[in-house]
Amino acid sequence: MKVIVLLSGGLDSVTALYHARENHDVIGTLSFDYGSKHNHCELPMAAYHSKKLDIPHIVLPLTFINDYFQSNLLKSGGEIPEGHYAAENMKQTVVPFRNGIMLSIAGGFAESHGAEGIVIGAHAGDHFIYADCREIFLAVMSAALREGTDTKVEILRPFVEMDKGAIVRRGAELGIDYSQTWSCYKGEELQCGVCGTCVERREAFQLAGIPDPTEYTEAED
Amino acid sequence: MKVIVLLSGGLDSVTALYHARENHDVIGTLSFDYGSKHNHCELPMAAYHSKKLDIPHIVLPLTFINDYFQSNLLKSGGEIPEGHYAAENMKQTVVPFRNGIMLSIAGGFAESHGAEGIVIGAHAGDHFIYADCREIFLAVMSAALREGTDTKVEILRPFVEMDKGAIVRRGAELGIDYSQTWSCYKGEELQCGVCGTCVERREAFQLAGIPDPTEYTEAED
Repeated sequence: MKVIVLLSGGLDSVTALYHARENHDVIGTLSFDYGSKHNHCELPMAAYHSKKLDIPHIVLPLTFINDYFQSNLLKSGGEIPEGHYAAENMKQTVVPFRNGIMLSIAGGFAESHGAEGIVIGAHAGDHFIYADCREIFLAVMSAALREGTDTKVEILRPFVEMDKGAIVRRGAELGIDYSQTWSCYKGEELQCGVCGTCVERREAFQLAGIPDPTEYTEAED
Repeated sequence: MKVIVLLSGGLDSVTALYHARENHDVIGTLSFDYGSKHNHCELPMAAYHSKKLDIPHIVLPLTFINDYFQSNLLKSGGEIPEGHYAAENMKQTVVPFRNGIMLSIAGGFAESHGAEGIVIGAHAGDHFIYADCREIFLAVMSAALREGTDTKVEILRPFVEMDKGAIVRRGAELGIDYSQTWSCYKGEELQCGVCGTCVERREAFQLAGIPDPTEYTEAED
């Protein structure tokens, strides 16, 4: 199947890209510059892996998200909270319906370029806070894309039953250099090690039993 | 209910705006500048009615559609075909998943601004060519928005069982000045009168039994 891979430059989507190449014809990777505090850190990682695999990489500007949406993940929003992902204050990092918007745009892009599927790296650990990462949402959104396109574009979600540890194990099998991935929401020179997504990143390597190649600003407790 | 109205500046969405004001608290209208040949003609109409009703109007730029999508409706595409809407060649005017993209963005915007619903003027006559105008698509897309947002944003589709004649009759009851609406896909000085959407516009007034205030380039056969 010809597919487009949604590629943020984080652990999950980079692994989804290498994984998708085993089973599909990946005709392109799509990233979005939507005004998050860490876009300038993660987009170069998306470019790095696309270039390494010789796959066309396109970055689409969604400036209106930073201009009009409410979220602390955005440059226009407040401080990134610290602590574990499941904590209530991490809700401040939700960008409303971000995955729905990205999947919709990818759907129109896919239909325009003859791709039949869109690959997203959503996983079983994303559910607590982010409504648009849950399998129930992704299943319905896939049905919407099928109904709303002539070519019946599908959303493929290969990691939806895996936790982040299993994703890193899969990535290690695929030979991925995880030092070239970015998670931290703060978007500073190094990944902070203490925001929700950094805490989750550290746990992923621990769960996988694989050394974490990341240089964090703050050492582990 | 607090709602956002999707407003292109055409017959259907302008009527949907005036209709929505009867039942809902319309907190804003949203238009999209996506690079169609007629955006520069229809967006001023959307601005006109928003201003007249004293409702904030926001135009979001979606430049990537013209840059990367395939459609003759776009500046980057070929000629607009002429003839009746149901004809096979009108398929060239499909912008892949356009409504899905607009509804998704409106969903995130709605959640960011405390709106619980999005109003779209899709109607029973849109089905033949445009997959993303059909009720089956809109129903599933509404379910996707409900699942993918914390506030469970809904898509309201008040005209989904009406034909375009019934919409114009409803608009006449609401006192809408239809000379201040734009349909023509060609985007020239006057509406052409012979492209698919102009043919449909003319039929709408005939079906409604209401004089058509539009000055077309080409007289009726």
